[in-house]
Amino acid sequence: MAVENNRRRRLTLDDLHAAAGRLKNWGQWGQDDEIGTLNYTQPPDIVAAARLVQKGKVMSLALPFDSRGPQGGRSNYPATGRFNPMHLMTRTGTDAYAGVLDKRGIRAADDIVIMPMHCGTQWDALSHVFYRDTMWNGYDCRSVTSSGAEKCGIEKTREKMIGRGIFFDVARMAGTAALEDGFAITNEHLDRAEKYFKVEVRRGDFIIVRTGQLEAKLQSGSWDGYAGGDAPGLAFETLEWLQSKQVSGVATDTWGVEVRPNEMDGANSPFHSIAIPIMGLSLGEIFYLAELSKDCAEDGRYEFMFVAPTLPVTGAVGSPTNPLAIK
Amino acid sequence: MAVENNRRRRLTLDDLHAAAGRLKNWGQWGQDDEIGTLNYTQPPDIVAAARLVQKGKVMSLALPFDSRGPQGGRSNYPATGRFNPMHLMTRTGTDAYAGVLDKRGIRAADDIVIMPMHCGTQWDALSHVFYRDTMWNGYDCRSVTSSGAEKCGIEKTREKMIGRGIFFDVARMAGTAALEDGFAITNEHLDRAEKYFKVEVRRGDFIIVRTGQLEAKLQSGSWDGYAGGDAPGLAFETLEWLQSKQVSGVATDTWGVEVRPNEMDGANSPFHSIAIPIMGLSLGEIFYLAELSKDCAEDGRYEFMFVAPTLPVTGAVGSPTNPLAIK
Amino acid sequence: MAVENNRRRRLTLDDLHAAAGRLKNWGQWGQDDEIGTLNYTQPPDIVAAARLVQKGKVMSLALPFDSRGPQGGRSNYPATGRFNPMHLMTRTGTDAYAGVLDKRGIRAADDIVIMPMHCGTQWDALSHVFYRDTMWNGYDCRSVTSSGAEKCGIEKTREKMIGRGIFFDVARMAGTAALEDGFAITNEHLDRAEKYFKVEVRRGDFIIVRTGQLEAKLQSGSWDGYAGGDAPGLAFETLEWLQSKQVSGVATDTWGVEVRPNEMDGANSPFHSIAIPIMGLSLGEIFYLAELSKDCAEDGRYEFMFVAPTLPVTGAVGSPTNPLAIK
Amino acid sequence: MAVENNRRRRLTLDDLHAAAGRLKNWGQWGQDDEIGTLNYTQPPDIVAAARLVQKGKVMSLALPFDSRGPQGGRSNYPATGRFNPMHLMTRTGTDAYAGVLDKRGIRAADDIVIMPMHCGTQWDALSHVFYRDTMWNGYDCRSVTSSGAEKCGIEKTREKMIGRGIFFDVARMAGTAALEDGFAITNEHLDRAEKYFKVEVRRGDFIIVRTGQLEAKLQSGSWDGYAGGDAPGLAFETLEWLQSKQVSGVATDTWGVEVRPNEMDGANSPFHSIAIPIMGLSLGEIFYLAELSKDCAEDGRYEFMFVAPTLPVTGAVGSPTNPLAIK
Repeated sequence: MAVENNRRRRLTLDDLHAAAGRLKNWGQWGQDDEIGTLNYTQPPDIVAAARLVQKGKVMSLALPFDSRGPQGGRSNYPATGRFNPMHLMTRTGTDAYAGVLDKRGIRAADDIVIMPMHCGTQWDALSHVFYRDTMWNGYDCRSVTSSGAEKCGIEKTREKMIGRGIFFDVARMAGTAALEDGFAITNEHLDRAEKYFKVEVRRGDFIIVRTGQLEAKLQSGSWDGYAGGDAPGLAFETLEWLQSKQVSGVATDTWGVEVRPNEMDGANSPFHSIAIPIMGLSLGEIFYLAELSKDCAEDGRYEFMFVAPTLPVTGAVGSPTNPLAIK
Repeated sequence: MAVENNRRRRLTLDDLHAAAGRLKNWGQWGQDDEIGTLNYTQPPDIVAAARLVQKGKVMSLALPFDSRGPQGGRSNYPATGRFNPMHLMTRTGTDAYAGVLDKRGIRAADDIVIMPMHCGTQWDALSHVFYRDTMWNGYDCRSVTSSGAEKCGIEKTREKMIGRGIFFDVARMAGTAALEDGFAITNEHLDRAEKYFKVEVRRGDFIIVRTGQLEAKLQSGSWDGYAGGDAPGLAFETLEWLQSKQVSGVATDTWGVEVRPNEMDGANSPFHSIAIPIMGLSLGEIFYLAELSKDCAEDGRYEFMFVAPTLPVTGAVGSPTNPLAIK
Repeated sequence: MAVENNRRRRLTLDDLHAAAGRLKNWGQWGQDDEIGTLNYTQPPDIVAAARLVQKGKVMSLALPFDSRGPQGGRSNYPATGRFNPMHLMTRTGTDAYAGVLDKRGIRAADDIVIMPMHCGTQWDALSHVFYRDTMWNGYDCRSVTSSGAEKCGIEKTREKMIGRGIFFDVARMAGTAALEDGFAITNEHLDRAEKYFKVEVRRGDFIIVRTGQLEAKLQSGSWDGYAGGDAPGLAFETLEWLQSKQVSGVATDTWGVEVRPNEMDGANSPFHSIAIPIMGLSLGEIFYLAELSKDCAEDGRYEFMFVAPTLPVTGAVGSPTNPLAIK
Repeated sequence: MAVENNRRRRLTLDDLHAAAGRLKNWGQWGQDDEIGTLNYTQPPDIVAAARLVQKGKVMSLALPFDSRGPQGGRSNYPATGRFNPMHLMTRTGTDAYAGVLDKRGIRAADDIVIMPMHCGTQWDALSHVFYRDTMWNGYDCRSVTSSGAEKCGIEKTREKMIGRGIFFDVARMAGTAALEDGFAITNEHLDRAEKYFKVEVRRGDFIIVRTGQLEAKLQSGSWDGYAGGDAPGLAFETLEWLQSKQVSGVATDTWGVEVRPNEMDGANSPFHSIAIPIMGLSLGEIFYLAELSKDCAEDGRYEFMFVAPTLPVTGAVGSPTNPLAIK
């Protein structure tokens, strides 16, 4: 089945602000809510998701967190300041071998990691992006200071990020290893994916979208152009689709979910600017989907139990995660 | 039901080495194995674990990762060098408010964490502890250098740490808020717990043991004496029990699983020295079990689906985790 | 010679704002100046300072930078978020001994430090403290973002922090090992010190003031109460004295130069709030002065060549330093 | 004056071990010495160095410490794991502007640096390089563990790194902007430099050698090939020259002082392997020498007071520094 990418009109800031008016979910889950669309997933949905576990296969959707990660490649865009995880040892096996640990009566290794919360496979918190001076649910952006996020910190999601996972393998549907940079996945594509993969998106689902870009970078041996660069991804219009379906979260194998170069003049990451602060929609990025793609093609089942816990770092605006697809 | 803690004889290094001979699982899962007892959990066990999800309730067993964490309290023991997570912002909402982010056309916050892998709720990797100059499966301890663990890094467990969770709420069984420091949980206690909580431990289970110590520290408002200090915990003899039951992993609400002061002269953490390098048994620590304790007491069900993914930091000898108990 | 500490009247925010009007040096060294009073030290002053080197003795005024440093003690004040330097190895001699480095043909050790710029012996940059929404020379405080200080970063001082050092050993003048917390060093004390130590303060000098507090903490074996706590220190009124003398910088052996509890209601660190953003005066803190105290008492010379280079970390609002007194 | 670079014979490990026997200074300053050739500089030398200050001009020889530093360029050699300084803010002017700091009554900014000790302008400690299993003065290399260097840590040099500086502007002598990669500066060149620059090297001097490589990299806008890459530098034979002159330290504007590709088969950095552990010679690297080059050419004086304090990070195997040339 071919997937075309029709030329759509260039968007403007007027479209952004119109979408903000149209898609605003503020107050929908109370004035104190800090998790947005994650509220869509209810206990019965979790029970139902667990029932999808039928062969006992667990697939990690995380890239390894290490110095070979996706940050630091060359880019035509300004640097983001993110870097790959730095893993440092504070006690080692070589220390043990040298005998210098024996004074404590235990031969053990210890270690430390220094990592941006958004360095690899990750969730954005709702405190990650602001719309003008506000964030999700109308909170003041000034609640995110150098001391962290007082509102909408990632720790609020510690018992969320679990439910039914739906896998939209758009690259496979398009019959390509990887969609091209700048390829916009539209509402039409999403509608077609439901039929193509024989799954119906329901309230509270997590949608996992594969473009193939990450695997293409891995195969090329270079991350140049990945972090902060051009990419295939969701069109701005899909915000309407996701809103209408009442999904809990969306994740992709790209750096930033949305298509880049962006479809809008005057705004960088317009999809983010509506999804996170206006809709309260959780976004996952840099998901590793190669194994899942192969497995789903084999068994023809594009739904699974999805468990992708955040690390509850208090006040964090995102979190690395090791998402599990359990079938 | 009262739980007594009979005085047992003081152990010696001879006991340690004898246990090493008796409990050695090296080679059981092949010469290349790096995950040990996690092999016990097989796909049908995961399907069965998923069937335990009946009310759709998700409980996080993680402490918040922040500056108020369990490291840094005063201790009578030498400092371990571990510290609480340091969360630092690289872009903020106050930057957005001040207008300094607008040149990039996106108002967003970013952040970084600096954390020991063993700073809070965590899994030990099998590369964490050595027995003499070897680690799990007979690997040379020199494979854990300043560059990390070449063998048995935590990333090898990225699709593990999932299965049936069994909750042994020993403090509740003992009728106390918290067991005393130095209280040794013995094989007899574990046998009694199976009956008391009406669960039978099976191959591949994850055993979660609550002593109440962590909650007591939280209530006291001080972590003094917790990290690296005295604690209730598993007796050395329970290694035999865990071996015979073929459990996948064990986790507690204490700093180090095992009872402290340790039962052995001449060794620090003797339980670790056998469990990890000799048996290949995964240990979880600093699990927050208050909510789980309350819930299990209410519904009388001490088993659940347990999903506690590690963060696959390449070469790490442990990992923070956000363990989920799903009922 | 006794040194009394007369009760002075309690100050108010009115005093703060009046001082701001009276002491403002903005524009004095041009609209583009970013180093303030460091301009007072001119080349002939440096030549003259070098002539003070007569016995070839070099004294470091730095505390060791390590985990035993002054941060992290208990305090009655809110935590500042500063911590002691964390020194981590990335290659070790134990690695070398174990043979794991030989593949590169070099046996070498490497390391990393994680440290607050204000964790130990340190200089404040003029971007460290703001007066209302401005900083030194009238720059907007918004020029100090999460990306660092665009104006008045410490790197601007890389060729400064050198000149004549004057040592006011006020504890010795007072005949005590250490002045008490809350003891305010007044203009009268400074006048007396000039006579007592037989030195006349001149334009461009660096004044080093010893209270004895740091040594008292070292002797007590505990830093409790030091960082951010009460201390002896300069009275607010000494800003006038320092202004009239045209000194380049002032440093003390305390955490924050000024007397604490502060003399003013409604302001924390009022001395800083005038010295740095209004006067452009460089402040040094946590200087280790024990050896210098002993040496000056022995040879009776309270002036020396002072070289205390900052580390030019671009955009930093302070810098650790290893200040040298050279006599 | 032309400077030729005659082809010399390729060296072998036999040459390395022969040099180790011939140049060993162990025990020369006592069995407890940890600073090696820095002992050559005596108090009268420091007095004499101060007399060289004649015009009051201070030049910093440090590169800025920031994300644009020399680490991270592309290289044909294996990565060293070093990275550029990461400067992070913990309180900002934008926080102040947003009003979120006012609850503490002080508007101030704070910050943190994460940096390898060898990331930029730096001194190597004598614990940085091992010869077989020993380090300087015969200490066991196992004294450098994951906890740092128990012997020969950089903190031992806190009152050293001061004396007479001699500037050998070899690039200028050679009539070139920058010597070529692989250009070996020989004993003959050093002899010639003494005459050319009209300075006689004396016991206790610090020799600063300019190849022009660093400035060439700055001008090219890329650090590719600098860190760990090929470079002009001191020939292995100059160890004899430096030994005979009894210099205190040597610094260059290159990544590693010595010529690269190295002159020896089977060893990486053979010059380091003798200079540091065998001779106890302090090496400085990545010195910024452009301004000094210009000034010395103008006034014809190639000697000055040299003050380059290390930051006394306990147990560190190196230190960033802001070296000052004072004329």
